Amino acid sequence: MTAVPSLDEDMEQGLVGAGTSDGVAGPAVRRARAWLSRAAEPGSVVFWRFVEDVGPVEAVRRLRAGRAPDVVQALVGARARQDASLADLLRAERCGARLVVPEDDEWPGHLLHCLTLATLEEPDDPRYQSPRAAAPVPPLALWVRGPARLDELADRSVAVVGARASTAYGEHVAAELGHQLGERGWTVVSGGAFGIDAAAHRGALAADAPTVAVLACGVDRVYPAAHGALFHRIAEEGLLVSEWPPGAAPHKHRFLVRNRLIAALTRGTVVVEAAARSGAQATARRAQKLSRQVMVVPGPVTSAMSVGCHELLRDAELGAVLVASAAHVVETVGRLGEDLADPPERPTGARDGLSDLAVRVLDACPVRNGVSPERLATVAGCDVLDVLRVLPVLELADLVERTDAGWRVAAGKPAAGEGRR
Amino acid sequence: MTAVPSLDEDMEQGLVGAGTSDGVAGPAVRRARAWLSRAAEPGSVVFWRFVEDVGPVEAVRRLRAGRAPDVVQALVGARARQDASLADLLRAERCGARLVVPEDDEWPGHLLHCLTLATLEEPDDPRYQSPRAAAPVPPLALWVRGPARLDELADRSVAVVGARASTAYGEHVAAELGHQLGERGWTVVSGGAFGIDAAAHRGALAADAPTVAVLACGVDRVYPAAHGALFHRIAEEGLLVSEWPPGAAPHKHRFLVRNRLIAALTRGTVVVEAAARSGAQATARRAQKLSRQVMVVPGPVTSAMSVGCHELLRDAELGAVLVASAAHVVETVGRLGEDLADPPERPTGARDGLSDLAVRVLDACPVRNGVSPERLATVAGCDVLDVLRVLPVLELADLVERTDAGWRVAAGKPAAGEGRR
Repeated sequence: MTAVPSLDEDMEQGLVGAGTSDGVAGPAVRRARAWLSRAAEPGSVVFWRFVEDVGPVEAVRRLRAGRAPDVVQALVGARARQDASLADLLRAERCGARLVVPEDDEWPGHLLHCLTLATLEEPDDPRYQSPRAAAPVPPLALWVRGPARLDELADRSVAVVGARASTAYGEHVAAELGHQLGERGWTVVSGGAFGIDAAAHRGALAADAPTVAVLACGVDRVYPAAHGALFHRIAEEGLLVSEWPPGAAPHKHRFLVRNRLIAALTRGTVVVEAAARSGAQATARRAQKLSRQVMVVPGPVTSAMSVGCHELLRDAELGAVLVASAAHVVETVGRLGEDLADPPERPTGARDGLSDLAVRVLDACPVRNGVSPERLATVAGCDVLDVLRVLPVLELADLVERTDAGWRVAAGKPAAGEGRR
Repeated sequence: MTAVPSLDEDMEQGLVGAGTSDGVAGPAVRRARAWLSRAAEPGSVVFWRFVEDVGPVEAVRRLRAGRAPDVVQALVGARARQDASLADLLRAERCGARLVVPEDDEWPGHLLHCLTLATLEEPDDPRYQSPRAAAPVPPLALWVRGPARLDELADRSVAVVGARASTAYGEHVAAELGHQLGERGWTVVSGGAFGIDAAAHRGALAADAPTVAVLACGVDRVYPAAHGALFHRIAEEGLLVSEWPPGAAPHKHRFLVRNRLIAALTRGTVVVEAAARSGAQATARRAQKLSRQVMVVPGPVTSAMSVGCHELLRDAELGAVLVASAAHVVETVGRLGEDLADPPERPTGARDGLSDLAVRVLDACPVRNGVSPERLATVAGCDVLDVLRVLPVLELADLVERTDAGWRVAAGKPAAGEGRR
């Protein structure tokens, strides 16, 4: 029987050995992120920045040793001395789940990039940062249960969300949308809740299409309890996804933290039914803040469950598009697909010859709105002069382009864009 | 028994005597426009321009004598030798109707001005002008039946239009809108048809509010026949309005010609239910071309009678606003009301001291988008030098203002704008 390395031994090893090989994170990195996933409640800007700055393995070492900055150490508290990382990874494995980390190729980095960018807007002082329920912070890792690859499902995906207290009308429309989007090869992402969420998942499954439920509890838990059969089917054909480790309970505030992932992981968010000043509305506004297209299904003006939808459509600043069918949805997100270029395929060939620095600057480039070299330096974690040195190289390789607003990932050639739709 | 003057005698008299006094057109002018109303089918750009150019009395004389330009004379044909003008005026009087002409104060000139402006865009050659069903030409006169003043009712009015083959949902919403708009002091204008039109009229009447039905037949006719009681009530408390003389039949093409008046006479058009590619959609697009706000009530995406509404809301160029209640409608048109300034009240005092030329130039000024002095000269029918001479006078009197786009009617002062809402 092989002795299982302790967390701290693993971390020492991780700092010495290679973190990543063949597009899969090394065991030390994965174990470190598993530990971090339980050590701190997701959604903290200051915690995510700390991990980004020092790397996951060093972050764990410092937190274990009580050497992290006070404000970060305080977020972990007594959990710094506990370690369920191996147990969590094994528990995940037993239910057909795994931990996907940013160091994996499967990580949907180009979609989550919107959160990285949004986090840049957060002030340095934790007291003035967005509260956890609203902070646009990327996840540290994602527990994923199911046979599909997360990056592939998310690449052509649409969120369908709405009221739990839905009407027969809303459920019918959500199921139809889910079914028709599934038939057209689009992944329906939702929250696994009663009402609109469940109808959308079921519609997709009825079309034998994979669907993704992003949960606010462990991927081995069933909440709401009545959705056992539904979650079982999703885990067989699609994916259950969560930031929280196995066994984590669906605390109320976690749903708000979770909602940013539904918006970020998809090309756009469709709201099917929403009451006035409802959670579904908040999700839609969050999607818009992440530069995701908001789509809204109207309903009878006499229905309380459509009031929130109509409010969204009346809000000119939100720029929501009315959609009455899956065709409308595909038309909307398909167009966005062209704008988004195609980061996941492109780099395989072109970035091979690039320096580490160039890759970091390329990864720092947003896909839509250009940014300044200063900002690229911040995101890439290097000097502005370094950025200015590699940008011409990246531009010559047709990997980035300059816009009036600054630098961004180069738009795909028309043919590539066509192929993606 | 006094001898009734013949039409031609009246016209001779009209050319000698004063056409207008005390804001009421003289009898010769009214009789001339009555005759023109039957002589030529409404909606012809070339005919309207002819009457504008030579005046109604001279227009009748030339047409009677066969001396009008060929293309104009051809529109009248054998009717040039007929005369039912006096009979029409008497027939109108018997049913409580009257002929309102542009020379009357009651003429809703500031609202119909949008048609005058739009007509300017029409080419000179009649072959290239818009067909009658689409031409944005002002009416030559309006037959009006009912106790209210047309200009007053139209001043704070909203068109509520929609499908004849409406659903119970649409009729409920239209009636609610009509009722609540009526309660808030807004006049509901519609077409008197089955379905949404009738529901909107009935809702307004139920609130004891006047409502206006713009008909495609004589105001003494009931079409559809089942609306006898409805039209009777409208004529008692609101107005029946038509371009066609008493007795005129509701030919199919007349409804399209009529639709431009519903759009022009109101601050905005609300579409309640509309099938795909329907007449109600066409009315909405027409309203937008006349710079009127288009408002649309959504419905279930499963309802064929809401498909056209959702198409309108998805058309970004149309700029339609989703409205789910009368409050939304009032918010929308109330805002427009501020922009529109207050032409009907304003001039009573301020324009008293103005020369005829200045009044003509003032009347030629659009209320929203400014135009060049050259265009003002075209509309006012005078020389550009004359326009340049009187514009400073009008500006000093705070009646017109210069914008980047050119000259327009001066916006109301904030206090006045508030008072109008």
